[in-house]
Amino acid sequence: MATRKLLLLPGDGIGPEAMAEVKKLIDMMNADFNAGFETEEGLVGGCAYDAHGQSISDADMDKAMAADAVLFGAVGGPKWDGVPYEVRPEAGLLRLRKEMELFANLRPAICYPALAATSSLKPEVVEGLDILILRELTGGVYFGEPKEIIDLGNGQKRGIDTQVYDTYEIERISGVAFELARTRSNRVCSMEKHNVMKSGVLWKEVVANTHKAKYSDVELTHMLADAGGMQLVRWPKQFDVIVTDNLFGDMLSDVAAMLTGSLGMLPSASLGAPDEKTGSRKALYEPVHGSAPDIAGQGIANPIAMIASFAMCLRYSFNMVEEADRLEKAIASVLDDGLRTKDLMSEGMTEVGTTAMGDAIVAKY
Amino acid sequence: MATRKLLLLPGDGIGPEAMAEVKKLIDMMNADFNAGFETEEGLVGGCAYDAHGQSISDADMDKAMAADAVLFGAVGGPKWDGVPYEVRPEAGLLRLRKEMELFANLRPAICYPALAATSSLKPEVVEGLDILILRELTGGVYFGEPKEIIDLGNGQKRGIDTQVYDTYEIERISGVAFELARTRSNRVCSMEKHNVMKSGVLWKEVVANTHKAKYSDVELTHMLADAGGMQLVRWPKQFDVIVTDNLFGDMLSDVAAMLTGSLGMLPSASLGAPDEKTGSRKALYEPVHGSAPDIAGQGIANPIAMIASFAMCLRYSFNMVEEADRLEKAIASVLDDGLRTKDLMSEGMTEVGTTAMGDAIVAKY
Ligand SMILES: CC(C)[C@H](C(=O)O)[C@@H](O)C(=O)O
Ligand SMILES: CC(C)[C@H](C(=O)O)[C@@H](O)C(=O)O
Repeated sequence: MATRKLLLLPGDGIGPEAMAEVKKLIDMMNADFNAGFETEEGLVGGCAYDAHGQSISDADMDKAMAADAVLFGAVGGPKWDGVPYEVRPEAGLLRLRKEMELFANLRPAICYPALAATSSLKPEVVEGLDILILRELTGGVYFGEPKEIIDLGNGQKRGIDTQVYDTYEIERISGVAFELARTRSNRVCSMEKHNVMKSGVLWKEVVANTHKAKYSDVELTHMLADAGGMQLVRWPKQFDVIVTDNLFGDMLSDVAAMLTGSLGMLPSASLGAPDEKTGSRKALYEPVHGSAPDIAGQGIANPIAMIASFAMCLRYSFNMVEEADRLEKAIASVLDDGLRTKDLMSEGMTEVGTTAMGDAIVAKY
Repeated sequence: MATRKLLLLPGDGIGPEAMAEVKKLIDMMNADFNAGFETEEGLVGGCAYDAHGQSISDADMDKAMAADAVLFGAVGGPKWDGVPYEVRPEAGLLRLRKEMELFANLRPAICYPALAATSSLKPEVVEGLDILILRELTGGVYFGEPKEIIDLGNGQKRGIDTQVYDTYEIERISGVAFELARTRSNRVCSMEKHNVMKSGVLWKEVVANTHKAKYSDVELTHMLADAGGMQLVRWPKQFDVIVTDNLFGDMLSDVAAMLTGSLGMLPSASLGAPDEKTGSRKALYEPVHGSAPDIAGQGIANPIAMIASFAMCLRYSFNMVEEADRLEKAIASVLDDGLRTKDLMSEGMTEVGTTAMGDAIVAKY
């Protein structure tokens, strides 16, 4: 069995607590199934800043580039609100995304049957929901230049950010969208604001061309991003795969995540392009939720999103499809047994902490 | 009684049908209450393009600048999908906003008791909801330069949009937010993405400074815009006034509108700065919904958002507070009587068309 190199970047807040539960799974899979995972650890975010004044060090960045996959916890918290912009906790995550060229961010929004009732939406609107938001992750307003604050004198400053998209960037993300749609319900909805943004005009055009050239078997629709936000709230089941840019994807995937009532359960995968020779691709897996500093260190955080992110890692980075299925079933099964962390708690269920939830999933695997 | 000069711009799609119902109200108020409204009409959007190749003519623009208030229907539709970017229907609306300097866009999201059940959210989440999204409307990525598509050769193009905010723009919109909060529950939540955008860093700083300097009696909180979208879906009643930039405001106000289950009922006001001498301000009032080309011309569109926009006009442009209250009560009262346009229809209610709904509101006034 080949060696599988994982870099663990637990980060800040509840990140380390959630990551601890994944480590148990890795140890178990190594011991009982000879899975051959080799792990290293690094620092990212506020804890990295505290250790060496950078939100991720070059050494850890090198480890990330060399790993088969990176597991990422969460970054940030009020403790670092005052640190300089260039070394704020989020900069570490953005550097990883950019240097690893992780342009394709897969954010499934799935409503677990056991949890439909915890959504703020009516059960019939979200029950059985299974959509995938595909967010472009290395372009747009996150990275475009100029990005600066200029002092204009007279007490006036000017804040500038630049949204930039090139044809090839839109082409490759829409290619991923169509490929993913083929493994699902074969429908893609592309979202932008072509009515006010030139990048939106180009986005719509390139998605349509890519569709026409290579993927005309997939159903493609276009929607304005503001209308898309509305439709996600009104009737999310109308969608299969949604493909959109970095900033709209940030907003829309958060709204979609909240619909499911399972924010503490949602994983994500950020993927690079497959290597032309080996077919392998750089990848980072992280929960959709953030660092939740308000509950960090209390042992009550929900580790499921982090564990489900590891399941995505098994599937996408190591083609361990059976193992991924098995892990996802283990998660569903502990929920069916009525185990709930605090964020998911409802009447008649059994409240458990982070460790107990992790142990239960390991036991079910 | 002074003359009150209104410019009516019905626009495209269901705009003209909805505006027709407002005209009935204007005629009635002139005849029965000597309200002194003088109306002119103009073209905007696709119909303006069809008539003279512009999305709004200079002549109509002049009328808008000279009016006490503009009532705007809706613009756009598939018919004009292929027209050049500069003269697309939306350009007319954007020109009005920019040249009239309507920087403050008020979008109340109110859940009418009679309609709580039509929301896709659980009734307890939206019942009694009354929040106000204040969107900056003349800056940001909508108007920043460069805004262009560059041909890079080799089949590659680059789409560019620029987000720009100056201190004074953020100062004046946050001033409006704090003033409005004082007339409501005295709470403002400012939303941006300071963790990835420099304009967001400046936004947060200027809002905080404005608060400290002049409005420290108002409660101010800050939230990342993606988290804000989540929180709107999770528990919208936590908010009072939300202040945010042009693009985030576009997205967030659409999500908020959809929460109420009353999209066809929500008005908006776009206001300029008060004149230093007269205190009067330029203003445009429009429904939050769009032109809905799919149902245009069928006599089934809901005119209430347009009528409620006229109520905002009475309140904000003419200080006709009693009349605005009366009109809003008339709307609530026809709903209590069980009248519903198709979009709001539910069991046991009486379905009526656009005209009948307008007539019923006129009769109740
Ligand atoms: C932490 C932050 C930089 C990040 C983003 O805006 O992309 C987060 O919100 C996300 O969605 O992954
Ligand atoms: C029609 C369009 C240009 C407009 C916008 O994006 O501002 C609309 O969506 C709105 O919210 O008023």
